[in-house]
Amino acid sequence: MNVTKPSIPKGTRDFSQLEMTRRNYIFDTIRGVFQRHGFLPIETPAMENLSTLLGKYGDEGDKLLFKILNSGDFLSGANAPLSPNSDKASLQICEKGLRYDLTVPFARYVVQHQAELTFPFKRYQIQPVWRADRPQKGRYREFYQCDIDICGSNSLLNELELIQIVAEVYKKLNINVKLLINNRKVLAAIAEAIDAPDHIVDITVAIDKLDKIGIENVNAELASDGLSQAQIDKLQPILNLEGSRVEKIAALRNILTTETGQKGLDELETLFRYVDSLNIDLNIEFDIRLARGLNYYTGAIFEVKALDVQIGSITGGGRYDNLTGIFGLDGMSGVGISFGADRIYDVMTQLDLFPSDAVATTRLLFANFGADDELYSLQLLAAVREAGISAEIYPDAAKMKKQMQYADKKGIPFVALCGENERNAQTITLKDMVKGEQMTVSLAEAIAMIKA
Amino acid sequence: MNVTKPSIPKGTRDFSQLEMTRRNYIFDTIRGVFQRHGFLPIETPAMENLSTLLGKYGDEGDKLLFKILNSGDFLSGANAPLSPNSDKASLQICEKGLRYDLTVPFARYVVQHQAELTFPFKRYQIQPVWRADRPQKGRYREFYQCDIDICGSNSLLNELELIQIVAEVYKKLNINVKLLINNRKVLAAIAEAIDAPDHIVDITVAIDKLDKIGIENVNAELASDGLSQAQIDKLQPILNLEGSRVEKIAALRNILTTETGQKGLDELETLFRYVDSLNIDLNIEFDIRLARGLNYYTGAIFEVKALDVQIGSITGGGRYDNLTGIFGLDGMSGVGISFGADRIYDVMTQLDLFPSDAVATTRLLFANFGADDELYSLQLLAAVREAGISAEIYPDAAKMKKQMQYADKKGIPFVALCGENERNAQTITLKDMVKGEQMTVSLAEAIAMIKA
Repeated sequence: MNVTKPSIPKGTRDFSQLEMTRRNYIFDTIRGVFQRHGFLPIETPAMENLSTLLGKYGDEGDKLLFKILNSGDFLSGANAPLSPNSDKASLQICEKGLRYDLTVPFARYVVQHQAELTFPFKRYQIQPVWRADRPQKGRYREFYQCDIDICGSNSLLNELELIQIVAEVYKKLNINVKLLINNRKVLAAIAEAIDAPDHIVDITVAIDKLDKIGIENVNAELASDGLSQAQIDKLQPILNLEGSRVEKIAALRNILTTETGQKGLDELETLFRYVDSLNIDLNIEFDIRLARGLNYYTGAIFEVKALDVQIGSITGGGRYDNLTGIFGLDGMSGVGISFGADRIYDVMTQLDLFPSDAVATTRLLFANFGADDELYSLQLLAAVREAGISAEIYPDAAKMKKQMQYADKKGIPFVALCGENERNAQTITLKDMVKGEQMTVSLAEAIAMIKA
Repeated sequence: MNVTKPSIPKGTRDFSQLEMTRRNYIFDTIRGVFQRHGFLPIETPAMENLSTLLGKYGDEGDKLLFKILNSGDFLSGANAPLSPNSDKASLQICEKGLRYDLTVPFARYVVQHQAELTFPFKRYQIQPVWRADRPQKGRYREFYQCDIDICGSNSLLNELELIQIVAEVYKKLNINVKLLINNRKVLAAIAEAIDAPDHIVDITVAIDKLDKIGIENVNAELASDGLSQAQIDKLQPILNLEGSRVEKIAALRNILTTETGQKGLDELETLFRYVDSLNIDLNIEFDIRLARGLNYYTGAIFEVKALDVQIGSITGGGRYDNLTGIFGLDGMSGVGISFGADRIYDVMTQLDLFPSDAVATTRLLFANFGADDELYSLQLLAAVREAGISAEIYPDAAKMKKQMQYADKKGIPFVALCGENERNAQTITLKDMVKGEQMTVSLAEAIAMIKA
């Protein structure tokens, strides 16, 4: 066999034991909150048929799909000579692709299994997704999404539930966040209000850049998009909207007078009333500039930003009224959010928020003194594990220095030294690696000390 | 958008909430035992470079790799006209493949990260793998493996630890199993003993079929493999070996007289002595016929069979002395086993072994009586969740029959009915969906009843 220099594809990552333990702390926290709200997991395959994926993420998204080469003699399987165009050729030799997000597979799942499901259907899904993005800092080709969706109910209580979940997750993770809320109907009504209903995308894209490029550049961009000066002038009071949630809604009531506008404001008002009545412990802002990239939202739009660190959105979502329509099931409204585990990990690392006990490791290492004393240590080891303590024995009778270094490097807090004396007296000599102290005790005392 | 009839690639599966909850019960049990033995998780990317994967699983394995089409203009990226041969062409247009197992990625990981690791390195890894096998009952193109390996120690205490882990996992899962143990050195010594060292693969393949095709057919197969009648005659006492572990080893001591043979028997003897001294609660058999497909084992070979159901191996593994050699790191011995989660799931389903509380679901549903009564229910809901109970509110003020059906279908054991009377009296009317009883109680009493 020829020797292969080991490496992994660019944009992908190995996760070490420390990283995994910390990631699992995040996943377990999120999962616990999801479950307490009555959500249960599903999983879908990593591979979906390309017919399921193509056309769902725009032209740009189609390009970012990882396609899987058909197995076997794929060239003979292509029912015509291969096109010289790579895009066309790829469809002749690939039927499957890796999932790009969890939302389209979820929509596909709901339609395919609708007869077995109980609606409103509440599910969460924590799985990796793959995108052939250009790798860069903080952007990966394989990353996890943690999605939660409710499907088959128009009630705003679902939006409320998502807000409660955001509040609980970030409280447990100890991350200070701000939840931004907007409503797609309000955005549509803004375009209506300035007599530019066809320009809703231009307007939301431009508004979204307000923080970054300033109001003058936004106005210039709108002009180059084809908006008249009159339309741009009409937009200014909206761009400059300030004040509390109540004040903003009150101001917009007089500007967004269409049915769509009033409906959007009604929805926001109801949601904020819930939030206030229940004293939800979360910084919530009505942000007219929040649009998010996806065009399929029809009602609420959510985004969570971490307050103490410069990073993009760490959670986002909204209501989409007809996602399952693309798979032939109309009239199924859904609302959901997605927690970005990788960004949350980065935030917690930067702010040093991982609790020290998020490093689950062995609590006790039995030193190995060789064959004569082995059995006594093995018997104690079994008893200690039976008591629920993570424990191990150094597998070789190596030099004591090496064994101690092993405990040290792995952060194992206690080492048991059981030689002939301990065996005869049926005791354990326990070394506390943190304090550097050492004492000879009974098994029961040792277990109590380690659990303390 | 055109409507896509939803389906998933053949050989792949969606997992429903019930299936997921049961699968997680298996994963959590296995993970808990792994961790108690001082193993911690790592994860590797779904995609590996093809150079990492190719040539590691034999010609047959290479054919079963899922290859990922290079992104972008892959045709221009192929630095020569595309070969008319699909195998060759695939290497011109694909650099990456989906992992086929967890062992090769683990070997790659150890070599790539050797400077950061503490040896002996103990890791577990629970991730899906992909194989372009022909789909059939019980064989999937995407399935999970749960692997545990110790790398960098020759001690038989590692083999002992794996046996203890097998015993603990299956005791917790309540599955009756038999652990078969053999040693690759013993197999090599058998070939030596009958003067056919070059035929070790033929011999082990033939022996492996003993149960299925009988001794006469095995002998015929060996003859057609080129073994002489004298060699086949010499093999008969080995094929007919019977008795306890001690008796088998004693009998083989006189037959397998080479150094390799004696070494293999020493290893088995030491391992069985450990097992007996520690009274490990597991049915363990020394099975000379156990060979397993993989040729890289060099010492112990393990396989677990479920006793009460007809199914193949549900766990298997062994010691391999030089797996990391293919990535340029020699002399790193490893030993590991892999738990087959899909087969374990099938066993538990067939034998009805899932505990009833492995169906984690909402414990309490608040019925929805509409806007007037909503807030009171929402406040109680928050308090109930705060007490650690999974709870939800039906999101719409639908007919009571529909709401009750929802609770029924989801197996929710309690429904809270909180209308005007309850709100005024600050009580909850709690319906026990199992007993059909209904009573009006305080919040604290309700929490106690639901937790009981």
